[in-house]
Amino acid sequence: MPHIALPPEHIGIRGAMAFRPETAKPLNELVEILLAGPSTLSKGERELIATYVSSRNCTHFCASIHGAIAAAHLDGDEALVKQVKTDFTQANITPKLKALLVIAGKVQQDGKLVTAVDVDNARKQGATDLEIHDTVLIAAAFCMYNRYVDGLGTVQPDDEALYRERGRMVARNGYVQTSKEYLETVHSS
Amino acid sequence: MPHIALPPEHIGIRGAMAFRPETAKPLNELVEILLAGPSTLSKGERELIATYVSSRNCTHFCASIHGAIAAAHLDGDEALVKQVKTDFTQANITPKLKALLVIAGKVQQDGKLVTAVDVDNARKQGATDLEIHDTVLIAAAFCMYNRYVDGLGTVQPDDEALYRERGRMVARNGYVQTSKEYLETVHSS
Repeated sequence: MPHIALPPEHIGIRGAMAFRPETAKPLNELVEILLAGPSTLSKGERELIATYVSSRNCTHFCASIHGAIAAAHLDGDEALVKQVKTDFTQANITPKLKALLVIAGKVQQDGKLVTAVDVDNARKQGATDLEIHDTVLIAAAFCMYNRYVDGLGTVQPDDEALYRERGRMVARNGYVQTSKEYLETVHSS
Repeated sequence: MPHIALPPEHIGIRGAMAFRPETAKPLNELVEILLAGPSTLSKGERELIATYVSSRNCTHFCASIHGAIAAAHLDGDEALVKQVKTDFTQANITPKLKALLVIAGKVQQDGKLVTAVDVDNARKQGATDLEIHDTVLIAAAFCMYNRYVDGLGTVQPDDEALYRERGRMVARNGYVQTSKEYLETVHSS
């Protein structure tokens, strides 16, 4: 049960966002730019970074929904998403993404753990400064989203089919648009 | 030295924001609403929450600048800011703010540590649901800002006078406006 009076018809971060639309706006805009905006990293790759960080923070809602969005961008390959959560070093992803996930994992713990060697390794695998920047900010941002979702005690359902369905919707329409449509659907039902 | 090619004339988060103005926009808007927007918590109280979380994350730039902004809002009381960082239970702040700092400290570690008892304690001291929400989101957001600043290896000067001067500027003009003015000053100098 949520710690404060969040609208009961919303799950996860949607409940918190419906409670405080003023802060929901920049929170949605940030994730839209980072995960769905123009980038030389694919949407699937960026969602895998978000999923990996959320999984390490043990935030069920975020790990599940971003894992589902990642799978939707990766031809439904849920096994790959699971492998990235469990041990990405053995996953069928590029060496560049593996080097970026090392950086993301360190940022999840403490940004000060990132070393020049980690960054050089990513560069050697072809990562650009912008890709390294965005990896750091995606990892940092999910340390926020995860704590926001957990700290308010939001409802985080177990139903995998629900995340799969919503994951496809976000993969298709992006974050800002889905957020709008979702609120309209709930309010008109 | 920063891990990527951040503009050398900017320190701390300003370097990262100048490197990626697209993400700087929602990052500035979020902190503006949370720390400088309308609220039943004073600006000084909200800056103390941000300072406390940044101090626990050992992010020198954020703890210093937000500590300076807090002091600017609190009649220059730097000793109070230091006391909140060291042991807020003994600080000359309201019981409500102490109860909110307990919640913020738990969110800094892991949002799942926040209990119904913590929230009830804050309510008993007069905290509203919106104040509890904003405390959780301020703490979560500074777990992002701190990791962003540290993870990119941004320049974090030691000079206390520099933070004091900038702290007064932000306290006077807010975040979005200061960010604009600061960029203009740097670019025209």
